Amino acid sequence: MMTDREQAAFEAGIKLGALYHQFVGTPISRETAGSVEAAIESAVALQPFVERIRVRLNRDLMAENVFGYTELSGLMFDVEIVTRVGEAACRAALRAEEGYPMMRVLGYP
Amino acid sequence: MMTDREQAAFEAGIKLGALYHQFVGTPISRETAGSVEAAIESAVALQPFVERIRVRLNRDLMAENVFGYTELSGLMFDVEIVTRVGEAACRAALRAEEGYPMMRVLGYP
Amino acid sequence: MMTDREQAAFEAGIKLGALYHQFVGTPISRETAGSVEAAIESAVALQPFVERIRVRLNRDLMAENVFGYTELSGLMFDVEIVTRVGEAACRAALRAEEGYPMMRVLGYP
Amino acid sequence: MMTDREQAAFEAGIKLGALYHQFVGTPISRETAGSVEAAIESAVALQPFVERIRVRLNRDLMAENVFGYTELSGLMFDVEIVTRVGEAACRAALRAEEGYPMMRVLGYP
Repeated sequence: MMTDREQAAFEAGIKLGALYHQFVGTPISRETAGSVEAAIESAVALQPFVERIRVRLNRDLMAENVFGYTELSGLMFDVEIVTRVGEAACRAALRAEEGYPMMRVLGYP
Repeated sequence: MMTDREQAAFEAGIKLGALYHQFVGTPISRETAGSVEAAIESAVALQPFVERIRVRLNRDLMAENVFGYTELSGLMFDVEIVTRVGEAACRAALRAEEGYPMMRVLGYP
Repeated sequence: MMTDREQAAFEAGIKLGALYHQFVGTPISRETAGSVEAAIESAVALQPFVERIRVRLNRDLMAENVFGYTELSGLMFDVEIVTRVGEAACRAALRAEEGYPMMRVLGYP
Repeated sequence: MMTDREQAAFEAGIKLGALYHQFVGTPISRETAGSVEAAIESAVALQPFVERIRVRLNRDLMAENVFGYTELSGLMFDVEIVTRVGEAACRAALRAEEGYPMMRVLGYP
């Protein structure tokens, strides 16, 4: 009743929603951003149906507060994921669009 | 290129992944579970493409620790959501299946 | 070796740090803010050594994004807590100070 | 009115409460635990008054679910932190005690 493409899209949505709300709020700076990127990628890669995950966090938005760091916010995310279910793959992204951290299916490669 | 059903499934996945990782770990007890259910429902209902959301948290799993409460864990969730994109609606759930908090598309009502 | 005041301060810190990072990122609007306040208060009140907790979320900062809601951010918090250990009570707060969500001990009432 | 030791204890509490509720729920396995430990340590070290932070996550508790991973749970944490305010340092820990993820001041080194 459900196609593989539909399930692949569902699985991609789960992973993007999950990583966003798991990690938003994490104390971060330009120096530590790489460590947080690695932890997010390793966490997402464990989940079922994930074929590929790439996480970049926008250093340009990491303006320092009075204590010299900031927090991971939604607009910093630049994420691409590929999920696979059977024959279907779904490529999706989380990235800022006009001030909103948009999650979007990019295509079925 | 993407069907409405595919996007509706994607949107349902986003919301289930998001609520899980936003709220897991919240201190909870049988007495406060209703308040947390209401907050989760109100948060999810704000998000785009959500037509209906119902959150129940399994009190039977809320065994008290030495301080008289516990934490919201994945297996406590019993959630149903309906998302709508254009003509397509997607009904999906998050609930325990054989010890795993499974997210699943239930159908296209 | 540790005084009751020191432990009361430690316990207040735990609760403020915990609620901040548990709930930041929650989808919210002026209409749903009351529900989230209630859930946070009920969660914190369960934890050991908490005598009083009051959570207000600043509606003025809840500007709507293109989908008509926003996210709970650190600067929205206006929280006061009283913890008690033995004879000592500690009153502490989380609220915005010069663009930073500051946590501070207010006194020992 | 507040001693340096009291504030150091308050600051230690903040950091332990924060890291717990930021990272609990993260998908994890024995293979990725090191990456998550590094990310938590780098996040905590950014925060004010932190002199030292050491995070170990208990691999023995990382039993695999049907998909071959698990989630970071409170009982997995073994954390020690030293905060410093003026002349006072506070050493505190988060680790399992009798089935509860206990946060405790260990002393003023």
